[in-house]
Amino acid sequence: MAKRVSIIGSGNWGSAIARIVGYNTSLHNKTFEKEVKMWVYEEIVGGEKLSEVINTRHENIKYLPGKKLPENVVAVTSLVESCKDADYLIFVVPHQFVTGLCKELKGNIKSNAQGISMIKGLALNNSANNGIHLITDEIKSILNIKCSVLMGANLAHEVAEDQFCEATIGFNGDNAEEGIILKKLFHTDNFRVNIVKDANTVELCGALKNVVAVAAGISDGLGYGDNTKAAIIRLGLMEITKFVEKFFPPSNLSTFFQSCGIADLVTTCYGGRNRKLGMAFAKSDKSIQELEKELLNGQSAQGVPTAAEVAVMLKNCNAEKDFPLFIGVDKVCKKQIKPEELIEYLKNHPEHL
Amino acid sequence: MAKRVSIIGSGNWGSAIARIVGYNTSLHNKTFEKEVKMWVYEEIVGGEKLSEVINTRHENIKYLPGKKLPENVVAVTSLVESCKDADYLIFVVPHQFVTGLCKELKGNIKSNAQGISMIKGLALNNSANNGIHLITDEIKSILNIKCSVLMGANLAHEVAEDQFCEATIGFNGDNAEEGIILKKLFHTDNFRVNIVKDANTVELCGALKNVVAVAAGISDGLGYGDNTKAAIIRLGLMEITKFVEKFFPPSNLSTFFQSCGIADLVTTCYGGRNRKLGMAFAKSDKSIQELEKELLNGQSAQGVPTAAEVAVMLKNCNAEKDFPLFIGVDKVCKKQIKPEELIEYLKNHPEHL
Repeated sequence: MAKRVSIIGSGNWGSAIARIVGYNTSLHNKTFEKEVKMWVYEEIVGGEKLSEVINTRHENIKYLPGKKLPENVVAVTSLVESCKDADYLIFVVPHQFVTGLCKELKGNIKSNAQGISMIKGLALNNSANNGIHLITDEIKSILNIKCSVLMGANLAHEVAEDQFCEATIGFNGDNAEEGIILKKLFHTDNFRVNIVKDANTVELCGALKNVVAVAAGISDGLGYGDNTKAAIIRLGLMEITKFVEKFFPPSNLSTFFQSCGIADLVTTCYGGRNRKLGMAFAKSDKSIQELEKELLNGQSAQGVPTAAEVAVMLKNCNAEKDFPLFIGVDKVCKKQIKPEELIEYLKNHPEHL
Repeated sequence: MAKRVSIIGSGNWGSAIARIVGYNTSLHNKTFEKEVKMWVYEEIVGGEKLSEVINTRHENIKYLPGKKLPENVVAVTSLVESCKDADYLIFVVPHQFVTGLCKELKGNIKSNAQGISMIKGLALNNSANNGIHLITDEIKSILNIKCSVLMGANLAHEVAEDQFCEATIGFNGDNAEEGIILKKLFHTDNFRVNIVKDANTVELCGALKNVVAVAAGISDGLGYGDNTKAAIIRLGLMEITKFVEKFFPPSNLSTFFQSCGIADLVTTCYGGRNRKLGMAFAKSDKSIQELEKELLNGQSAQGVPTAAEVAVMLKNCNAEKDFPLFIGVDKVCKKQIKPEELIEYLKNHPEHL
């Protein structure tokens, strides 16, 4: 039976992926119901309701202006209405809203629905153990469903322009056929999707690369050149691989060669919010919070809180010495050490023994 | 017995590495003879002999101005004189000179000497089989010695400024102790060296990344953004791994995580000659040869001839379809296809099946 797809979120990335998903449900109309419901947090934009603009003019004029959405993508302002019949729930909202949205959905979705998270970050930590809590763990535990992830080097506006790029699905399901259906939902001529099994690795790459990008920004801010930045990217990748192996095994080394791994890491270390913040921080006396306000227009850079949570986890199991980059970034951001000392930390990296 | 070290070459990179090697032979004076002979191709600079300037003022005023060389680095203008007593021969000259220099050295070096090549590129192909010929193969076959390689994300002027960076030695020797000695020769507080066994992989990373950088430049020239470039870097890395596994096995996947692998690849794809040339080529009607003259000050971009040699090798064994990036770069450079078509090639990459 054809599967129903809903998209939870309609920001920049949500709207960009709605173009792809809407196109694919039309194309593969035996596999999917053509209509895709997209949950829209209602806003008034220029005197009009955003949901109505989307449903009449087929454009998200606030978050993805200038790009047409497929007509089969239908904006729905009630979260429960948008999701209650769905077989696939695509989560693409800022990470801080996940818990609340899942609680609202609990008991109101199909029992065999599956989630796909496109959220790069970690869940807010409500647990006593100070461990890292994946977004998909949060979704799974509240809704009692399977949840895969889609990550990669995917700046939303470039995806919306149909520029050639790649993404990785970390598939959390039972059989190969299910994986093929999931790939069908996202793969196009320009948006090339690979599917791998170790979903935890894919998800953690998406969260941990932000810590490395803060370090890359610090190096840039201190005036170091390409060699040092390349070393930081590489050492950061090695710490990501070790972290995943230590805390979320098993992990396949080849997954780090996917778009979710090196490709997303590199892009984030050369552009993006976390690098920008790290660079400004290295050159200024201001706090991270002040700089976020000044530079990021109210958005947050996930690398800083991620480094803090990672540091707690490493401290708890006495593994700080194996992760000098992660620990160093946390200490710099808390002003416990100077930015220059991060580079000294890296000179004694266990990778060089 | 303490080992004698000679450096064959005194250009930008040769002079930068002479600072490190000269420092280390002084520091580890039980392992090495302090004096390091550096072969200098004699030139007159500002009315003075370059070799005499180096030996009196300890500065290579032509190729590394402003940086002091250690006083134990001694310029020698006779190639044979500079090398005849050496236990370690460090090759750091443009690739087109290797064959001639080795022929001049043949019969004039110690029989148990070892080579270390720092040359990123391929040997000129004189063989009938149109196969890729490594620089170290050329050195080994003419001089009948072992030859290791040192590669990494190492822009010479940043190394000369003692900026923190990493490098990889691909060690081609018999025992671990020999490897430790080799590491001692290069490893410092700022220049961090890892040693791995599969020397062919290390060397091929150094040569093949230039082809990927041409592709990255083409993408930049066509106006594609970060997503596409990240995909090109990743697909290029996958083709490098497959190429090495196919033609120069065995190869260890972890070697590609070293500085010689991803780190050097990333740096080359964001900066450097090959990217610059690819970018200009995508935007212009001129030939590669014209653009090299205009842009590179007479220097050549190794990515173009490397792509040509790789393409011949792949054609000979009917493997073109598995390497669309390598093949596409060669065809673009020969104007057999338009730059835009390279991106179309990548959309049908076997990695996405």
